[in-house]
Amino acid sequence: MTAKTVEFYFDFGSPAAYLAWAQLPALCDEAGAELIHKPMLLGAVFQATGNRSPAEVPAKSRYVRRDFERHAARHGVPFNFNPHFPINTLVLMRGATAMQMQDGGACFGAFCACVFRAMWVDEKNMNDPAVVGAVLQGAGFDAVQFLAAVGQQPVKDRLKAVTEEAVARGVFGAPTMFVGEQMFWGQDRLDWVREALAQH
Amino acid sequence: MTAKTVEFYFDFGSPAAYLAWAQLPALCDEAGAELIHKPMLLGAVFQATGNRSPAEVPAKSRYVRRDFERHAARHGVPFNFNPHFPINTLVLMRGATAMQMQDGGACFGAFCACVFRAMWVDEKNMNDPAVVGAVLQGAGFDAVQFLAAVGQQPVKDRLKAVTEEAVARGVFGAPTMFVGEQMFWGQDRLDWVREALAQH
Repeated sequence: MTAKTVEFYFDFGSPAAYLAWAQLPALCDEAGAELIHKPMLLGAVFQATGNRSPAEVPAKSRYVRRDFERHAARHGVPFNFNPHFPINTLVLMRGATAMQMQDGGACFGAFCACVFRAMWVDEKNMNDPAVVGAVLQGAGFDAVQFLAAVGQQPVKDRLKAVTEEAVARGVFGAPTMFVGEQMFWGQDRLDWVREALAQH
Repeated sequence: MTAKTVEFYFDFGSPAAYLAWAQLPALCDEAGAELIHKPMLLGAVFQATGNRSPAEVPAKSRYVRRDFERHAARHGVPFNFNPHFPINTLVLMRGATAMQMQDGGACFGAFCACVFRAMWVDEKNMNDPAVVGAVLQGAGFDAVQFLAAVGQQPVKDRLKAVTEEAVARGVFGAPTMFVGEQMFWGQDRLDWVREALAQH
């Protein structure tokens, strides 16, 4: 018997990824599935696939913002669209990768919660390194240790490898969830993930 | 009291528009709402908004095809992805517009059913004028009358006007549904349309 898993490819810069991240733990608990976080660099995925952010199409950007707000309200997820969007997440995604690699990933969950909340609830300007430092220190992380960690070559390499793995599996946006090799894209496909787990 | 309506902006070339078109009549019946069809030219919407078809991003194109198949299967809508996609729909959308303008729109429903079925069930190459002619004649339409109708300036002007109206209201893709001024994009937002009608 194969264990049930949901592989979750995400980038902090995606509001859709935040909405899925907020809902997936309960969904996986209910289904008896393991949730496997896969931090990737969405900008690199866009570059590799020729895809681009909805932010580049003003009418689409206005609509999807409203659409995210509707989704958040329906599912009771705290959400405020970040006025500084889009945000360059390279350092943050390296940070998530570093947290996975350190201490058996002991601080990974707290790190993700801290960054996602700063980005999609507290409307922090995470393009500003000083703001990032203050946010991390406010959550009990050591900013100096963090900067040292994100500069390590194995961390950079691993983020690159996971991003390339995502592209090789067909990922073109965020969030993307895999149940086995069934791929689902978007916060609005969680019911499909639930169904796939039930049939797995 | 305002009458409940769903305004449905569509283009025959969009598989998502076909899926929504197949489901909207029953949805509107149940909600006691009037369904108002708004044929528009999706290519012109893309050009005006800077948006583009998922077909231009290979990984996205592969995924959305599978996603449409899942949606069709879940909702029991006959669906086969057209191997000739993308299809230039200018003449077909002018045809839909002409059918709305003739005889109080008496043949509009049959025309839409015929074209949508040829496109998204029977996998016809609707880029080929000979195939279009055969499809229309097979459904009882006169191909010569059709060609005369789509060449009329008022028909061209009306399709252009509806397309411009769509863009002015914020439309960037197909299908787009309006309940009042609430806008919903995609075959996967029909539950939101239903909810908006219930609250209307």
